[in-house]
Amino acid sequence: LLLEHGFTNVFPVNPKESEVLGMKCYPSVKDVPSDVDLACILTPASTVPGIIRDCAEKGVKAAIIFSSGFAEAGNVDLQEQVVELARSAGIRILGPNSQGVVSTPANLCATFSPSIMIPDAPLRGNVSVISQSGAIGGSALTHMWSLKLGVSRFVSTGNEADLETPDFLDFLAGDEHTSVITVFLESIKDVEGFSRAVSRAISSGKPVVVFWSARSRRARKLVKQHTGLKPPEDYTPLFKKLGVLGVDDFEDFFDFPMALAWQPAPSGNGVAIISTSGAMCSVMVDLCEEYGLEVPELDGDAENKLRGILPSFASAKNPLDVTGQIILNISLFKKCLRVLCGETRINALLLTVTTAVDEPAITLARDIVEAAETVRSYGKPMIVCWLASRAFSQKSHEILLEAKIPVYPTPRRAVKALKALVEWGKIKGKREKLQHS
Amino acid sequence: LLLEHGFTNVFPVNPKESEVLGMKCYPSVKDVPSDVDLACILTPASTVPGIIRDCAEKGVKAAIIFSSGFAEAGNVDLQEQVVELARSAGIRILGPNSQGVVSTPANLCATFSPSIMIPDAPLRGNVSVISQSGAIGGSALTHMWSLKLGVSRFVSTGNEADLETPDFLDFLAGDEHTSVITVFLESIKDVEGFSRAVSRAISSGKPVVVFWSARSRRARKLVKQHTGLKPPEDYTPLFKKLGVLGVDDFEDFFDFPMALAWQPAPSGNGVAIISTSGAMCSVMVDLCEEYGLEVPELDGDAENKLRGILPSFASAKNPLDVTGQIILNISLFKKCLRVLCGETRINALLLTVTTAVDEPAITLARDIVEAAETVRSYGKPMIVCWLASRAFSQKSHEILLEAKIPVYPTPRRAVKALKALVEWGKIKGKREKLQHS
Repeated sequence: LLLEHGFTNVFPVNPKESEVLGMKCYPSVKDVPSDVDLACILTPASTVPGIIRDCAEKGVKAAIIFSSGFAEAGNVDLQEQVVELARSAGIRILGPNSQGVVSTPANLCATFSPSIMIPDAPLRGNVSVISQSGAIGGSALTHMWSLKLGVSRFVSTGNEADLETPDFLDFLAGDEHTSVITVFLESIKDVEGFSRAVSRAISSGKPVVVFWSARSRRARKLVKQHTGLKPPEDYTPLFKKLGVLGVDDFEDFFDFPMALAWQPAPSGNGVAIISTSGAMCSVMVDLCEEYGLEVPELDGDAENKLRGILPSFASAKNPLDVTGQIILNISLFKKCLRVLCGETRINALLLTVTTAVDEPAITLARDIVEAAETVRSYGKPMIVCWLASRAFSQKSHEILLEAKIPVYPTPRRAVKALKALVEWGKIKGKREKLQHS
Repeated sequence: LLLEHGFTNVFPVNPKESEVLGMKCYPSVKDVPSDVDLACILTPASTVPGIIRDCAEKGVKAAIIFSSGFAEAGNVDLQEQVVELARSAGIRILGPNSQGVVSTPANLCATFSPSIMIPDAPLRGNVSVISQSGAIGGSALTHMWSLKLGVSRFVSTGNEADLETPDFLDFLAGDEHTSVITVFLESIKDVEGFSRAVSRAISSGKPVVVFWSARSRRARKLVKQHTGLKPPEDYTPLFKKLGVLGVDDFEDFFDFPMALAWQPAPSGNGVAIISTSGAMCSVMVDLCEEYGLEVPELDGDAENKLRGILPSFASAKNPLDVTGQIILNISLFKKCLRVLCGETRINALLLTVTTAVDEPAITLARDIVEAAETVRSYGKPMIVCWLASRAFSQKSHEILLEAKIPVYPTPRRAVKALKALVEWGKIKGKREKLQHS
């Protein structure tokens, strides 16, 4: 895998083999005829202390321990032994029980996450993922890639015996290849370090999205069992204080970064809803109210302008039911969007598409991309809710995603993502004020 | 479209044409040389009263008015005129402003919903859809079909000038081709008729799933504007009283029917969670608690049996972290499921899959299908949450869906669907008790 993804300087080590994939295999890391930066350890738990000793002699600086059978299986002493050996030799450890690391800027794919086996993976970009669960983090990667959302770094932190979530968070805060940070966590050992790292990330203009499980008492007990970490507290107040975008749904974990990476943060919570379906307008109004987003009435001047563009039977209000006629006429459609973008109380646009499939969907997607240029020139975000199954509008989804227009398959997901964008606008605004005062 | 989907007895009517698609075109319905059962009217609103008069003379029994420009555009009088003409001639009207009807048992596709244009549509089955929004109903159809969930009848009710949601609900309650009924609605004109029809459906063992929008005051005002219907009340207490499965998310509208159509209703709310990821166990435990599902501890005997099957480092508890070794060994996996199914406090199984993609995912899907047979023999439902994107495990999803095993892409959607199944079990149980006493 390392080789397949363009990383060439690899030396296999296995005392039982003399050749691996046509490369010479060494009995010990000590026999490798070159300096070693990173050791990837995939051997049974009991052999790991010996290997760390070898690494120490060789002067290795870092190791990923993929092997399981440590604290998560009750073998706390073995894990502590490994950490002590590593510390005294100045070796930093990721894991044990880690699914490894992906770093697209370094062409490094040191992971056994099956996510990396999918075609064209890893897709490069500016979203980074830290996950205490390799399974959940890896699954999130597959969704990001299906949304054409590129990834910079992925770390499966495993048992966090040495390097912990805050260490990686701190690195990403200063990483030029990362603009959005996502974290899945069950427990934070070093709350202070976590807080400092989050604060640094936000000061650097990077939103931090955290999917935190183990909210219930029962689940907290489980976490203690399966990770060996201390049972977590309720992090809700901490996240709120720090300006972390906390999420409680798996899909938010890629939905939010898509909006944050691709669209500007709005300067307020006023949303214009544009739809060709009256019913979708009421579904969206319900959800905006539920998530604390405003759907402001338009002022008289804007209504007059819209009335001049829309057919007589359409109502020139927010939500705007643009009718099928308008959405198929790109120049009229853009005129409508310009009127909405010109309103100071409208900070973001939410466009809803319903049963568009096949060829007509492709035309529509191209028009939306063109219209989005107009919206972009106002510095306001626009996101799309596309209700028909992507299975039958694959190409049109790709057109939108390649143009970095976030598309969501359900009304709630669209509104939640927009809400995250609004929240991020607030957090960023506060931080900037603080920095200037 | 009618012709394409196998309906052959069609007569085009248009005073301006003499031929349509190679068929003779008649100037008026009165000139058609045969009895006419159903008139499909797609002409400008102002021409509709005249056409209804022609239909009356011809002895037509029913008409679908696809045309818009009636009450939803403020033309209440025109709509009333049409209804009066139809009533006095004994013609039943669907619409106006309807996207029409699909009836797979009758090979009838009298709709312009783009959903019907997708390949292999309409997929036949036992779920029926009544929708006050053609756009939302049609979009839901695309999702049902992508989930291989077949549909019996689809009705877009439009303005409900004559035939209303309760009329169709009542028909479906007695329809041998329908086993699950889904409804999207914004407003119920005839609450009493609705209640009677729901009651009849439930007595016939058919769950009724209702997606109701316009919960907020703002949205209710909108509904009045765009449909001409009276602004809806808060239907939550009504639904609860009637045993309607109310939903507040678009995805529930196809997620719930998938579980209800394919899996037996459980006799209690005890869930066994089976996973290969510790973190997914805690995510699922959180959600089960949120939705009022129990994750019962296993009794000592069951734990002992599981300990005999699982590797030593796995914990023999509920949630059951079966480890990668077990899930790849079908005979051991089935043994585990048998132990869980044998527990009286376990009423349903929730299996979670994480980053499975490509070939290994296909093997896994086949194993799950085989294991599901075991579960089925206990009369207990099993649903699957598959976390990796379906984009990279298309084939494995198809294997599960064809075996009628519901698969959900996110933990929340899986747990919500399971909760709906548990609710339906309760409603059904109560109704049966009532009928026997």
